[in-house]
Amino acid sequence: MRVSLIGAGNVGYHLAQRLRAKGVTLCQIFSRDAKKVNSLAEELGTEAVSDLQALSDEADLYILAVKDDAIVKVAGQLGYLNKGKRIFAHTSGATSSTVLAPYFHNYGIFYPLQTFSRTIPIDFDQLPLCIYGNDVVSNQQLTQLAKTICPNVYHLDDKQRRVLHVGAVMVNNFTNHLFAVTSEICKKEKLPFELLKPLIQETVNKLAYLDPKAAQTGPAARGDQGTINTHLNYLDSFPAYQELYRLLSASISQMKDIG
Amino acid sequence: MRVSLIGAGNVGYHLAQRLRAKGVTLCQIFSRDAKKVNSLAEELGTEAVSDLQALSDEADLYILAVKDDAIVKVAGQLGYLNKGKRIFAHTSGATSSTVLAPYFHNYGIFYPLQTFSRTIPIDFDQLPLCIYGNDVVSNQQLTQLAKTICPNVYHLDDKQRRVLHVGAVMVNNFTNHLFAVTSEICKKEKLPFELLKPLIQETVNKLAYLDPKAAQTGPAARGDQGTINTHLNYLDSFPAYQELYRLLSASISQMKDIG
Repeated sequence: MRVSLIGAGNVGYHLAQRLRAKGVTLCQIFSRDAKKVNSLAEELGTEAVSDLQALSDEADLYILAVKDDAIVKVAGQLGYLNKGKRIFAHTSGATSSTVLAPYFHNYGIFYPLQTFSRTIPIDFDQLPLCIYGNDVVSNQQLTQLAKTICPNVYHLDDKQRRVLHVGAVMVNNFTNHLFAVTSEICKKEKLPFELLKPLIQETVNKLAYLDPKAAQTGPAARGDQGTINTHLNYLDSFPAYQELYRLLSASISQMKDIG
Repeated sequence: MRVSLIGAGNVGYHLAQRLRAKGVTLCQIFSRDAKKVNSLAEELGTEAVSDLQALSDEADLYILAVKDDAIVKVAGQLGYLNKGKRIFAHTSGATSSTVLAPYFHNYGIFYPLQTFSRTIPIDFDQLPLCIYGNDVVSNQQLTQLAKTICPNVYHLDDKQRRVLHVGAVMVNNFTNHLFAVTSEICKKEKLPFELLKPLIQETVNKLAYLDPKAAQTGPAARGDQGTINTHLNYLDSFPAYQELYRLLSASISQMKDIG
């Protein structure tokens, strides 16, 4: 299977690296940023393209690893490649596969469920790769490629992927925001945020042993209103964080009551 | 230094194990639960006590590893031991040291900042041990003992410890609640929560490289109101979680705007 990658952002970059490492033929890689894509193409021994109308039709699969709000715009410009059995897949957790339907016969999803940073290596042996194809052949082809680069391949439809993406926002974006809030408080109080890192790691380690609902501890879980009030008083000088504290405590208490 | 431990809950249990492993003399260990304390004392080769009025005065330090709301009650019954240079320290992040002042000449804090479960080993080489003594001698004695069992010893006053405890609730209890919420959604949708674990671990791994504020990603951080609305619509059937989603997204957006 021959692949061309459209997009050289964090997802495109790491996908390209992994495809190459697993011996998949990378025909071309596209980015509007000519300098960026030239350097990446050189690193990968593939061809750089910086004009979206100049992609060759030699690939079997075109992976659109572009920002969510660019998917439709990019798809709309790739009609000239929509020939034969070529497949077009995007990498977004948040975007329906059906946005590709007006433009392509064969389309699907190639969504690595992970947070990507340019400089941090991605372990494709650990992450789940969620795929979807709009027909049997697309599904087979995408599955085959997915299994080449990742041992954990899941078939999810648009609804399932949307749910999982809501979950990803909760456990990644919202969790990180709680870290950020705490880090800001620590900065203001001249306390090292470092002190909390072993606790953070242990919070995650517990997931291997316990269901998070069963693992819930803290003042709200034990109905310790005295400690909650002490904390809310302290947070008087951070009204936005105080509201977060109040709502999250109420939510913990409610989950416990419902059982 | 000779230590007696009051309380055989999760903190008391792991502290006792660690003190023993580091060769500290454990005079006695107390719990009202006679069966529990007998078995623990036997495991540790120390003496079990289940009557709070029957502790010997041979220890230099009495560690009150009891629930927050029991500290004052227990302290009030230990007046008969308040002789000479004996020190009394509690292990709570949430409770002021001064609650001990009415009962003891020498008192302080011995607070291991970590989440404790009975069955999961605790790595005292990683956690921060936060101590405080009400005078120079108490401070010295508590520091010496702390350094015997933990390389990361911090002197924090009551205010600093309270702030850190607010942070601990944020990064541990609230983070775990977000995991629990997501796990409940996954259960209802028959999706494996397992799929999100690599993402959770990576969210934490990033803290080693990036300040969490700088690491913030997701729909709220990039002002992607379309995705936020899609997620809020999905959460119509989970009104409590919908409110969490809305407030956390607003808080991320606000932090980004303030810069």
